[in-house]
Amino acid sequence: MAAPKTVLIVYAHQSAGSFNSAAKDVAVEELTKQGYKVIVSDLYAMNFKATATQQDIIGDLQNPDEFKYGDETLHAWREGRLTEDIVAEHQKVKEAELIIFQFPMYWFSVPAILKGWIDRVLTQGFAFTLQNLYDNGIFKNKKAMLSFTTGAIQSMFCPDGLHGDINVTLWPLQNGVLHFCGFQVLAPQVSWCPAHSPPDVRTSMLNAWRARLKTLLAEKPLTFPPCTMFDMTFPGGFVLRPEVREEQRSCPHGISTGHHLGKPLPPDNQLKAEEKGDAV
Amino acid sequence: MAAPKTVLIVYAHQSAGSFNSAAKDVAVEELTKQGYKVIVSDLYAMNFKATATQQDIIGDLQNPDEFKYGDETLHAWREGRLTEDIVAEHQKVKEAELIIFQFPMYWFSVPAILKGWIDRVLTQGFAFTLQNLYDNGIFKNKKAMLSFTTGAIQSMFCPDGLHGDINVTLWPLQNGVLHFCGFQVLAPQVSWCPAHSPPDVRTSMLNAWRARLKTLLAEKPLTFPPCTMFDMTFPGGFVLRPEVREEQRSCPHGISTGHHLGKPLPPDNQLKAEEKGDAV
Ligand SMILES: Cc1cc2nc3c(=O)[nH]c(=O)nc-3n(C[C@H](O)[C@H](O)[C@H](O)COP(=O)(O)OP(=O)(O)OC[C@H]3O[C@@H](n4cnc5c(N)ncnc54)[C@H](O)[C@@H]3O)c2cc1C
Ligand SMILES: Cc1cc2nc3c(=O)[nH]c(=O)nc-3n(C[C@H](O)[C@H](O)[C@H](O)COP(=O)(O)OP(=O)(O)OC[C@H]3O[C@@H](n4cnc5c(N)ncnc54)[C@H](O)[C@@H]3O)c2cc1C
Repeated sequence: MAAPKTVLIVYAHQSAGSFNSAAKDVAVEELTKQGYKVIVSDLYAMNFKATATQQDIIGDLQNPDEFKYGDETLHAWREGRLTEDIVAEHQKVKEAELIIFQFPMYWFSVPAILKGWIDRVLTQGFAFTLQNLYDNGIFKNKKAMLSFTTGAIQSMFCPDGLHGDINVTLWPLQNGVLHFCGFQVLAPQVSWCPAHSPPDVRTSMLNAWRARLKTLLAEKPLTFPPCTMFDMTFPGGFVLRPEVREEQRSCPHGISTGHHLGKPLPPDNQLKAEEKGDAV
Repeated sequence: MAAPKTVLIVYAHQSAGSFNSAAKDVAVEELTKQGYKVIVSDLYAMNFKATATQQDIIGDLQNPDEFKYGDETLHAWREGRLTEDIVAEHQKVKEAELIIFQFPMYWFSVPAILKGWIDRVLTQGFAFTLQNLYDNGIFKNKKAMLSFTTGAIQSMFCPDGLHGDINVTLWPLQNGVLHFCGFQVLAPQVSWCPAHSPPDVRTSMLNAWRARLKTLLAEKPLTFPPCTMFDMTFPGGFVLRPEVREEQRSCPHGISTGHHLGKPLPPDNQLKAEEKGDAV
C-alpha cells in the first residue's frame, strides 16, 4: 500500500476556541477523512521562535564579525547545521503535497509568528535558489494556499473599497512567498469578519470551507506570468522581454501584478447571497 | 527654549556592520545635526518580543477561556495594563513627529521582529479606533516612512519587472499599517541590492539618503484617497460613493490601490544614472 499523502497546516492562533481553530479543525477532519495524513504546526502552542538570529545556526559562523542571516543559513543548511526546530519544519514541508496557512489577518498580512515561520523555514537552498524561482521553483510540484479571517467586511477589500483590492494586499504573500518558491498557489479561503457575523453565518463559512476541501486538490491554481516572459539575465534586468511587452500593452500596471488586480476571488470562495445574512 | 522635536527610528538588523546599520547611523547623525532628538529602537539588540500573546497583558484577562488578542489589548491599554516593553514603545511613538522604519526586505515585507513591533505596539485605542482611520487617523499629525534594502535590483520591481510593481508590494505596509493609523507617509527610501553593489555605489546610496534627510520633513507625503470618497457606513460597505465612482471610471483597478500603481518612486529616491555604476 502506498504511504498516504501529506497536508501540512501552518496554524497561527492563540486560542483553541477561535474561529481560526475551528477552520483548522474542519481541514484536519475533512482531509483525514479523504485519507490524507494531516500535520499541524500550531505555532503559538509550539512557542515557535519568530526572529531570525544567529541562534538558528549550530556551531561556528562563517563570518562572526559581520553576521549575515541569509548567507549563514544557506551555509548551515548545506552542512546540516540549522537548529532542530527549523529542520523539523523542513521535514514537514518536504513531505507535504499541500500547505495551508491558517491565520487571522494582522495588519494586512500574517501575524509576526507566522512571518517568523516564513523567514526562518524557507531557507535559501532548501526553498529557493537564485536559479530556481517562481515557475522554476523548488516546490513546483507542491501546492500552497492562504486561509484566513479578517476584521474587515468583504466590500472593504473590493477594488473600489476603502482598503483597496484584496489581490494587491495578498501579492507579497501569494507571489512573493508562495509562488516565489514555486508553489502552485490555490485561491485564498477568506472568512470575512467572523467576530461580527451571526452564528449561522459563521457556520455557513465553515461549511463552505468544508465543501471546498472535498475537491481542493483538484482545483486549478492561480495564474502568474511565467519566467519565460521575462529577460532573466542581469543585463536584461528581469523585465518583460520586448516582444512580450508589445503583446501586453493593454495591461497598464505591468503583467505581473496587473494580472491579479480587479479579479474577484473565485465564486466558490464567496458565500452565496442568501447565506450572508445581514452581516455584510 | 522649546524641547527638541523627536524622530524615532525602528531598526531591525542583527549586525552593527551591515548596510542597514550604516543607513540608520546616517539618519541619526544627520537628524541630530539638525537639532532633532533621535531615539533608536534597535529591535534585535532589545531582544524585542515578536509574538502577540497573553503575556502582553498584566493581570487578569477579561475572557481567559477564549483569549482574543485584539479585545484584550484594547481593554488592557485602557486600564494601563500592557507590559512595560509595549508601553515604552507607545511613549516613543507619542513623542515622535517622524518614525523611520529601517530594515532589510524579508519576503516582500518586513522581518518578523519588525512585524511583531507593528502587531504589538500599534494597539487598538492607542494607534487607531474604528472611527479614527486613514486621513482621520490618530497619528495624522505625524509622519512615517519605510527605509529598506533589498537583494533585488530595481528593475525587478518596476511595473514590467519579474516581481511586479514595488508600490503593490509596499501597499500592505504603506497603506495598511502607516496610512491606516493616520501617518502622513513619506516616499520610501530604497537602497537596492547593497550586498552586490560595488563600494562606491553603496557609498552613493548612503550619500543620497543623507542628502534627502536634509529636507525630509519638508517633503510632500504620498497621496491616498481620502475617506470622504467612500461611503463610510456598514450598509454602504465602505466602497467609493457612486458620484466618485463615476468620476474615477478611468481608474480600472480601483482608486485606492490603482492610485499607487505604475508610479515611479520620486526621483530624489533614485540614484542618478552615473552613480549607479554597472551594478544594475
Ligand atoms: C494585531 C491585530 C491586527 C489586525 N489587523 C487586521 C487587518 O489588517 N485587517 C483586518 O481585516 N482585520 C485585522 N485584525 C482583526 C483580525 O483579523 C480578526 O480579529 C480575526 O481575523 C478574527 O478571527 P478569530 O479566529 O480571532 O475570531 P474569534 O474572535 O476567535 O472568532 C469569532 C467568533 O467565532 C466563534 N466560533 C469559534 N468556533 C466556531 C465554530 N466552530 N462555529 C461557529 N462559530 C465559532 C467564536 O466563538 C467567536 O465568537 C487584526 C487584529 C489584531 C489583533
Ligand atoms: C529571510 C530573508 C528574506 C529575504 N527576502 C527578500 C525579498 O523578499 N526581496 C529582496 O529583494 N531581498 C530579500 N532578501 C535579501 C535582503 O533584503 C538583503 O540581504 C538585505 O537587504 C541586504 O541588506 P544588509 O544591510 O543585510 O546588507 P549587508 O550584507 O549587511 O551589507 C551589504 C554591504 O554593505 C557594506 N557596508 C556596510 N556599511 C557600509 C558603509 N558605511 N558604506 C558602504 N558599505 C557598507 C557591508 O559591509 C556589505 O558588504 C532576504 C533576505 C533574507 C535573509
